[in-house]
Amino acid sequence: MSPAELDRTDPTGAIAAAAKRTSNRGRWGADDVLGTLNFLDEAKRVEGAGLVRRGVSFSLAQRFDADGPQNGWRRRTNPVHTMLSSGLDAEFGPEEFPHGLGGADDVIFMPLQASTQWDGLGHIFDHGQAYNGRRASQVVTSEGDRLTGIETVADRIAGRGVLLDVGRAFGTDGELPDGFAITADHLDGTIAAQGRSSHVGRGDLLLIRTGQLARARRNGWGDYAGGAAPGLSFTTADWLHGSEIAGVATDTWGFEVRPNEFDVAFQPLHQVVIPHIGLFIGEMWDLDALAADCASDGAFDFFLAAAPLPVTGAVGAPVNPIAVK
Amino acid sequence: MSPAELDRTDPTGAIAAAAKRTSNRGRWGADDVLGTLNFLDEAKRVEGAGLVRRGVSFSLAQRFDADGPQNGWRRRTNPVHTMLSSGLDAEFGPEEFPHGLGGADDVIFMPLQASTQWDGLGHIFDHGQAYNGRRASQVVTSEGDRLTGIETVADRIAGRGVLLDVGRAFGTDGELPDGFAITADHLDGTIAAQGRSSHVGRGDLLLIRTGQLARARRNGWGDYAGGAAPGLSFTTADWLHGSEIAGVATDTWGFEVRPNEFDVAFQPLHQVVIPHIGLFIGEMWDLDALAADCASDGAFDFFLAAAPLPVTGAVGAPVNPIAVK
Amino acid sequence: MSPAELDRTDPTGAIAAAAKRTSNRGRWGADDVLGTLNFLDEAKRVEGAGLVRRGVSFSLAQRFDADGPQNGWRRRTNPVHTMLSSGLDAEFGPEEFPHGLGGADDVIFMPLQASTQWDGLGHIFDHGQAYNGRRASQVVTSEGDRLTGIETVADRIAGRGVLLDVGRAFGTDGELPDGFAITADHLDGTIAAQGRSSHVGRGDLLLIRTGQLARARRNGWGDYAGGAAPGLSFTTADWLHGSEIAGVATDTWGFEVRPNEFDVAFQPLHQVVIPHIGLFIGEMWDLDALAADCASDGAFDFFLAAAPLPVTGAVGAPVNPIAVK
Amino acid sequence: MSPAELDRTDPTGAIAAAAKRTSNRGRWGADDVLGTLNFLDEAKRVEGAGLVRRGVSFSLAQRFDADGPQNGWRRRTNPVHTMLSSGLDAEFGPEEFPHGLGGADDVIFMPLQASTQWDGLGHIFDHGQAYNGRRASQVVTSEGDRLTGIETVADRIAGRGVLLDVGRAFGTDGELPDGFAITADHLDGTIAAQGRSSHVGRGDLLLIRTGQLARARRNGWGDYAGGAAPGLSFTTADWLHGSEIAGVATDTWGFEVRPNEFDVAFQPLHQVVIPHIGLFIGEMWDLDALAADCASDGAFDFFLAAAPLPVTGAVGAPVNPIAVK
Repeated sequence: MSPAELDRTDPTGAIAAAAKRTSNRGRWGADDVLGTLNFLDEAKRVEGAGLVRRGVSFSLAQRFDADGPQNGWRRRTNPVHTMLSSGLDAEFGPEEFPHGLGGADDVIFMPLQASTQWDGLGHIFDHGQAYNGRRASQVVTSEGDRLTGIETVADRIAGRGVLLDVGRAFGTDGELPDGFAITADHLDGTIAAQGRSSHVGRGDLLLIRTGQLARARRNGWGDYAGGAAPGLSFTTADWLHGSEIAGVATDTWGFEVRPNEFDVAFQPLHQVVIPHIGLFIGEMWDLDALAADCASDGAFDFFLAAAPLPVTGAVGAPVNPIAVK
Repeated sequence: MSPAELDRTDPTGAIAAAAKRTSNRGRWGADDVLGTLNFLDEAKRVEGAGLVRRGVSFSLAQRFDADGPQNGWRRRTNPVHTMLSSGLDAEFGPEEFPHGLGGADDVIFMPLQASTQWDGLGHIFDHGQAYNGRRASQVVTSEGDRLTGIETVADRIAGRGVLLDVGRAFGTDGELPDGFAITADHLDGTIAAQGRSSHVGRGDLLLIRTGQLARARRNGWGDYAGGAAPGLSFTTADWLHGSEIAGVATDTWGFEVRPNEFDVAFQPLHQVVIPHIGLFIGEMWDLDALAADCASDGAFDFFLAAAPLPVTGAVGAPVNPIAVK
Repeated sequence: MSPAELDRTDPTGAIAAAAKRTSNRGRWGADDVLGTLNFLDEAKRVEGAGLVRRGVSFSLAQRFDADGPQNGWRRRTNPVHTMLSSGLDAEFGPEEFPHGLGGADDVIFMPLQASTQWDGLGHIFDHGQAYNGRRASQVVTSEGDRLTGIETVADRIAGRGVLLDVGRAFGTDGELPDGFAITADHLDGTIAAQGRSSHVGRGDLLLIRTGQLARARRNGWGDYAGGAAPGLSFTTADWLHGSEIAGVATDTWGFEVRPNEFDVAFQPLHQVVIPHIGLFIGEMWDLDALAADCASDGAFDFFLAAAPLPVTGAVGAPVNPIAVK
Repeated sequence: MSPAELDRTDPTGAIAAAAKRTSNRGRWGADDVLGTLNFLDEAKRVEGAGLVRRGVSFSLAQRFDADGPQNGWRRRTNPVHTMLSSGLDAEFGPEEFPHGLGGADDVIFMPLQASTQWDGLGHIFDHGQAYNGRRASQVVTSEGDRLTGIETVADRIAGRGVLLDVGRAFGTDGELPDGFAITADHLDGTIAAQGRSSHVGRGDLLLIRTGQLARARRNGWGDYAGGAAPGLSFTTADWLHGSEIAGVATDTWGFEVRPNEFDVAFQPLHQVVIPHIGLFIGEMWDLDALAADCASDGAFDFFLAAAPLPVTGAVGAPVNPIAVK
């Protein structure tokens, strides 16, 4: 399906049809809590480790601080980091410890999806249904996600990563414009352009770079959160499903193109890929340094360890992903 | 030096002497912010990746939730996780989104050292001095660590990990008793007992299991934070320095033995290894599953990715370390 | 009804019967959000102001800090107060402001019912029903209380306060033992003992002192939150209803006697007084200094201003009540 | 002194001169922690209570929620309120309690000066000195204000309030434009215009309405925090000192006129009135409803209870002030 074929007036119908075509419901049993991470097996980790040649490593996380992409919308602030004690206390404050010991300590308050993060399977529902056909109310209460909390995948997300730098392949100066909808053709075209290290298949962790983060950092965040951005077209649901990838992350706030491709809609691709495909989605990853290295040496795959902070019952969690080439 | 040689009445003198013997001040230049992570180079990452044989992975993080080791001491609470919206809202609450979309979202408040974490180089001072001889007040203010914040090592901590299961080697049912001081002899003895995969050297990430976490989980946390525990003897400072390891983590709250080995003291080994050696210390890691696997297959080294959440200016940061064998 | 008449095996039946006898449902119309605060009218404020004779004032709030009554149960921690900047930064840190200006600033994280507080009408439900027969799900979602949030009474709670020092009247050294159930007879007996300034009637704000806070402060908090304590007997529901008071507060964590007066129960009196009577309940008030003054001058009524922090949608809110005599 | 006489290039000199003219240092002894609240005595509370005639009450607090004046600057966010449990859980979630009891509970994270608040005496320093000539570093550390924390005035702030509605007296439609500097002449002119109930003297709690809050609410907050606003002229320091008021509050973010009246400056009047006069300043109070009532009945004084939340060591604290006429 191409974006031109979408009926912009009927997101509900489009979502239902895509859900039907791509559903993994029951694929791994009624009790499954892993979704597409079932594709990421031990052989894939061995394959991923085999991609480490130079030993160079890249953090794919943004820095977690007040200068971030959130603007307070839906009570999502940027992280607030404060000190319980500092070096000033140690040097000039009242003595707290014996033998000249001084210490600094700190706390944080933050929405779990404030910055670089994985969405958990309990993050999005379709008409009150969560992943695997469960009732949303049975999965996520005020105590958190009781079944598919992010801690259930704490030890899983390490394997072969592959970068599709769509920004470099189809953008200007490496950046796609806001509102640019990345289609299956763009993904396939990027794979073709980048060459054989870019093949994408079962169990891979796919990283899609739009270049928008570079722009946001250059121009300031402004109203970034929820604002216009490049991202995946709704029509990529089938491609994402058919590829049998274990997870996919982008360098944008919202993963899919904003504004969305319907007249009245909000994140319709999420509504398909999380509750129906059971796909793990990463957002606000910083892919720029890795992408520059890949462009330089032509190798677009690598070992990727991206274990989320295992907050019990979390429907999303911050992560500092490490790519090693 | 053996614990018997320590003058229990003079921690200040012992700290000063150990600091003099083990200081890495200036070793990597006056501007260095990496400390012992300088030992972890690209070759070490290649070596670590080469240890992945079966592709099995282990999370070494405790779950981050209210049932944790903190008791409020020094304003350190356990993490408090709350929902901004839940599946109940999606299924039964007022409609928020079009086309049947529902979402759950969450926030967290936590001390950065509430659970599994890395200490940063700005965490501990000796007589008002931070790592590399800097004044504490010039490094860590109320805005956080301005020089050695944990974000400076965001992309570093991936390489060869090696587990020394001292609990299995010298304990009962795999657990050392509280107050047990692990000496250099215990470390060397564990290496000898475990065999050749356990060699420890420059650039390695060393994990030391005491077994105390297993006990704490079995018996409840009680007054765990700051209470009695097995841990490293003050006298291991030279061993830790001489080994040229990049980092070291234990399964206890405090890394070093508690109560400490002086009549009146608080964490004296910290006062040597952080500001003088520049050593990265991990605490409250969960090594039990990994240890069982190592005991089973006899391979005690592995690839370890343990990238801390890059909170700007943090003097410590939570981490979900992943070991892959 | 006396406590001896309670069937300890049937809290459900006792609650239903008490609810039927005491319900104010519909009394102030279907849209009412004020409950018993409807009794507190302008004449009552004039009466209260007329009680100010000496101009002496008392804060009835505990201090909000880490040394408080919470123990983490149900994710209720004590308040965590941290500084954004301090005097150390101003005196020794990097210069932030021109012309020698220095500033300190701070943040807090706390459960809204961590310390001295008012329960809102959305705090407790009976079989899924909130005050005035509303469905709980229609009143309090993850966004908070949409109808009876504490902000709806932001300007109300000022009027005549009256203290019943049951601890002094029936306790030892001014303190009732833990588990002591205060009955209607104890309340009436205290009124009689204290004399005519202690009459309780329509629109009054009633303060009931047990003395347990004095004991908790003397002995440390221990497992105070939810533990054994003196408090109101379940059987006082009719007295509380018949008195037509506007609100009632105690110096304990839980208002009613703990353990509760049924074999298996949790806060059954709450289940009657909040959703059925619509009564405003205050907890963890510090009545000791006021009580000493009242005992000294024999005047047990006073002007009371106890306006909760108007957090939008809150089901409870901290307050610093001020009594002026 | 009139604004025209200010040397816009020399805030440091102007501050030093004003500090010298207005200092209360030592006035109440070297150990004083109350500053101008020393002026608010018991007689003043009796006088205030005598002003209650109709019994009508007004909350002078803004609502504490995400739709507030903060924009993240200096890590000051708006309050973030989340639920620990809701009515949805009670009605549709897993059963938590016996006998049909359901409960909702909540937490808050907020800067203590996020909304309607009192500045404490530890909030502002002049060249490293706090109120009464103390060294800033000796007063406020990372543990908070050790001497003049807001809890020290927990029982004090109740007395005679008086409103000067400068917006109505000198503005258009009751609002002063942004950047309007209120001078002593404007204050005296407002008193004259409002009549005899508006006299201001020793121990009074003065409320100054600019009308800017009404405008901010009408137009949205925008970049309100720290942006342009009407407020007190630097030149009112002498008037504020000479009046011997106990405290003063405005309906703006910053109390004094913004931009400030020097070429390069930040809140210079704060630097005089807090550390030198020891004056208690309130900010972001909502005076509109009270002002409308005062304009209607011509009585501009009233009983005011404005007890801050007694957060131990806080340098500022939220408050829900209640005015009763």
